[in-house]
Amino acid sequence: MRNPVPEVVGSRPADHVGNGWYGQDILSVRQFNRPKLEYIFHVADDMRSLVLRFGSADLLQGKVLANLFYEPSTRTSSSFAAAMQRLGGRVIAINEVVYSSVSKGESLPDTIRTLECYADVIVLRHPQMGAAQIAADYARKPIINAGDGVGEHPTQALLDLYTIQQELGRVDGLRVAMVGDLKYGRTVHSLTRLLLQYNASFDFVSPEILRMPVEIVEEVKAHGAPYRETTNVLDVIGEADVLYVTRVQKERFTDLSQYEAVKDCYIITPEVMRLAKAHMTLMHPLPRVGEITYEVDGDPRAAYFRQVENGMYIRMALLAAVLGKA
Amino acid sequence: MRNPVPEVVGSRPADHVGNGWYGQDILSVRQFNRPKLEYIFHVADDMRSLVLRFGSADLLQGKVLANLFYEPSTRTSSSFAAAMQRLGGRVIAINEVVYSSVSKGESLPDTIRTLECYADVIVLRHPQMGAAQIAADYARKPIINAGDGVGEHPTQALLDLYTIQQELGRVDGLRVAMVGDLKYGRTVHSLTRLLLQYNASFDFVSPEILRMPVEIVEEVKAHGAPYRETTNVLDVIGEADVLYVTRVQKERFTDLSQYEAVKDCYIITPEVMRLAKAHMTLMHPLPRVGEITYEVDGDPRAAYFRQVENGMYIRMALLAAVLGKA
Amino acid sequence: MRNPVPEVVGSRPADHVGNGWYGQDILSVRQFNRPKLEYIFHVADDMRSLVLRFGSADLLQGKVLANLFYEPSTRTSSSFAAAMQRLGGRVIAINEVVYSSVSKGESLPDTIRTLECYADVIVLRHPQMGAAQIAADYARKPIINAGDGVGEHPTQALLDLYTIQQELGRVDGLRVAMVGDLKYGRTVHSLTRLLLQYNASFDFVSPEILRMPVEIVEEVKAHGAPYRETTNVLDVIGEADVLYVTRVQKERFTDLSQYEAVKDCYIITPEVMRLAKAHMTLMHPLPRVGEITYEVDGDPRAAYFRQVENGMYIRMALLAAVLGKA
Repeated sequence: MRNPVPEVVGSRPADHVGNGWYGQDILSVRQFNRPKLEYIFHVADDMRSLVLRFGSADLLQGKVLANLFYEPSTRTSSSFAAAMQRLGGRVIAINEVVYSSVSKGESLPDTIRTLECYADVIVLRHPQMGAAQIAADYARKPIINAGDGVGEHPTQALLDLYTIQQELGRVDGLRVAMVGDLKYGRTVHSLTRLLLQYNASFDFVSPEILRMPVEIVEEVKAHGAPYRETTNVLDVIGEADVLYVTRVQKERFTDLSQYEAVKDCYIITPEVMRLAKAHMTLMHPLPRVGEITYEVDGDPRAAYFRQVENGMYIRMALLAAVLGKA
Repeated sequence: MRNPVPEVVGSRPADHVGNGWYGQDILSVRQFNRPKLEYIFHVADDMRSLVLRFGSADLLQGKVLANLFYEPSTRTSSSFAAAMQRLGGRVIAINEVVYSSVSKGESLPDTIRTLECYADVIVLRHPQMGAAQIAADYARKPIINAGDGVGEHPTQALLDLYTIQQELGRVDGLRVAMVGDLKYGRTVHSLTRLLLQYNASFDFVSPEILRMPVEIVEEVKAHGAPYRETTNVLDVIGEADVLYVTRVQKERFTDLSQYEAVKDCYIITPEVMRLAKAHMTLMHPLPRVGEITYEVDGDPRAAYFRQVENGMYIRMALLAAVLGKA
Repeated sequence: MRNPVPEVVGSRPADHVGNGWYGQDILSVRQFNRPKLEYIFHVADDMRSLVLRFGSADLLQGKVLANLFYEPSTRTSSSFAAAMQRLGGRVIAINEVVYSSVSKGESLPDTIRTLECYADVIVLRHPQMGAAQIAADYARKPIINAGDGVGEHPTQALLDLYTIQQELGRVDGLRVAMVGDLKYGRTVHSLTRLLLQYNASFDFVSPEILRMPVEIVEEVKAHGAPYRETTNVLDVIGEADVLYVTRVQKERFTDLSQYEAVKDCYIITPEVMRLAKAHMTLMHPLPRVGEITYEVDGDPRAAYFRQVENGMYIRMALLAAVLGKA
């Protein structure tokens, strides 16, 4: 849509469907205030019931989604494809863009304006920060940002927050520990911003070179939210209500001995889990490569596959909302 | 279908549906006389109404399209996929053929005879001229040619002609300027052939080395259609009813100084547009890489994205026709 | 499903649908005894009628198939995609796994547990033997093995057996000649195992270095089934009820003169066909690269494209069965 990203969707003028979602882009977590979050979570609950009882519905019959992935992401593209199809809609999958028009030099605005001739909504994954905003500037149809490089991945942040609420029954006042690569992980940045609306307190656990960026920490401070920074998960495991784990990539270290020295501080094992609260919830955006050992999977607190499932419900809710059918 | 390409579809014996389309292949613009063109444009009009009112229909429910692309073309494959799905049909996308059976050496006839076991109609894009005809020779199910190398791309030519009619309300007697690479552009060759049925007159605007091929010019002469050839768009811009722009590729020139000398004669800017008629229509098969500047996009005469949309309606009409449901 | 592969599906406790198929994995031909085979062939017959009369049905409406291919196979993936869609279900195609999460190092169990959050059934093609069993060990949803390296490809064996029954009206007591690469061809191994339930006798025709593996021959012996081994198809052509041809790959020979010396013994031409029974059936799993010449295609005994079509009906039957809708 040819509009700048609003700070809050609710501040836009009401659309003709009357709920402020119809025709909107989903570009950034900054669009979501608490009423908007609660609304979308409520719709996601309905979607879960629908899938468990009926498998699918006809809500989006006659609608077409263009799933435009400039870089591969099986998890995210499959999640959107399943979400659209379980609502009775259809999907055009465009995964091979690097081989196609794009390699003939076509610009993102032209590709977007082409696809919106065929589709009712476009999901875009792109390696460059800001790509989703550029797409939205040119498009008449709604754009959903499915990750734009080091920028945002708002549907991931929404499903993370929704999972916390599902697992613990509430979000307000929780102590959330984020573990691993906090510097480059857009997931933890976006989730932190959402949690600031819920009076959360934070533990940021990372190697020294992968600390949470200053601008995020400044936002936390500005909200007056309590936070601590540490390099060892054992410092915080006993108090966390949520343990959100991300991958520490070897490639981030120029000095490999440094990596070897710290890596074991960021691996969640049954031994680590024994130190955690009985009702803690353990999350991971996946894929994981050893950060949580397989032995943990059977622990009832291990929520990462339920997190994946919640992603489908959140995306069903968003698709229905922006197409005026929620 | 195991039949040679007829010069005109209408000359074939009537099929049991009675409109001459059921079960036919779409291989070449030579199949289309004026009654056939007008019929398919009429169906395309209905498809537009259907999409604008309902999004989709059940016309092709139970039908399966195999979208077989031996070379990538996001635009064309997405257009067919959307067309089929908006008519209630299903799509099997085969984009990765280079990695697959084909790399095990399977012949086109065997691939076609395999896919027709699963599908009701096959759309084929292939790098070699004549591939669509070979496929049709072996297939029991209808084949739609979605581009066979330097051969034909008939659905593109149909959507181009349909766009002219949509934009200007008529085709008869128009002055059509074709600009850019007229030598290798199968698009302009096919469109010229269709326009000869409508008493069009032509301006062929190209660098010397990229002139319209002799055999096309001979066809124009044989029809007694007025035509001019020139190297500069400014020579013709004031009189054109249609300006059809294609890309002049640097790679075509062995002497790059020659390219540098001529390239600016083929770029459409707001300044060039100021010299054009108020009701001219500006078209491009896309993707564009600078031949029409972004500043022109807002000009109401810029029809290239409406052209894309028309492509979906034309393909819906063709799919419905060859499956006996138009 | 988290269960070991049973020798026979029927030996599992009855499920709530009552036919022993609901929720089952399809991993190996060893799961299929004669009653199970006859049941699935009966359902496949119904599927054929359904497709010929109506094109599709709503049996699997609301169900989603994840078509997970770690190596390309146009034929098999298209067959499953068409099968699912002709039953009213939806498909998520994951063909580009090498570029995706997997290249980020995600394990097969994690990919499977992710996709089952979106889908109701997973079809898996994987280059490593045993991969389908691993997937089934971790999955809650049914896994269908679409080929696991040199392991099994059970749906191919089922469609082969079904084709024999369709072409000849029976399977019991037939003389089946298998020709070509019998060492590496998992197809002929699985088919042999199934045929042992039907008192078949066997002719194994291959170059010396590509003979049927000892363990298969031992199974044949243990069943007391008559068998012969030879290097020339002419030795057996006159007596065969079924001639099952596979490709002899040049690459298997270290001594190319050896290949040149034998290759013509494994090419089926009209001259070879003249020596065969009037009611023999000629089969090939495809793709072929010269093992059967094009001149043979018109012979009514050439069943390989009907074999392809049968594959879709068998896969429709299996999908309906494991989803409790057969």
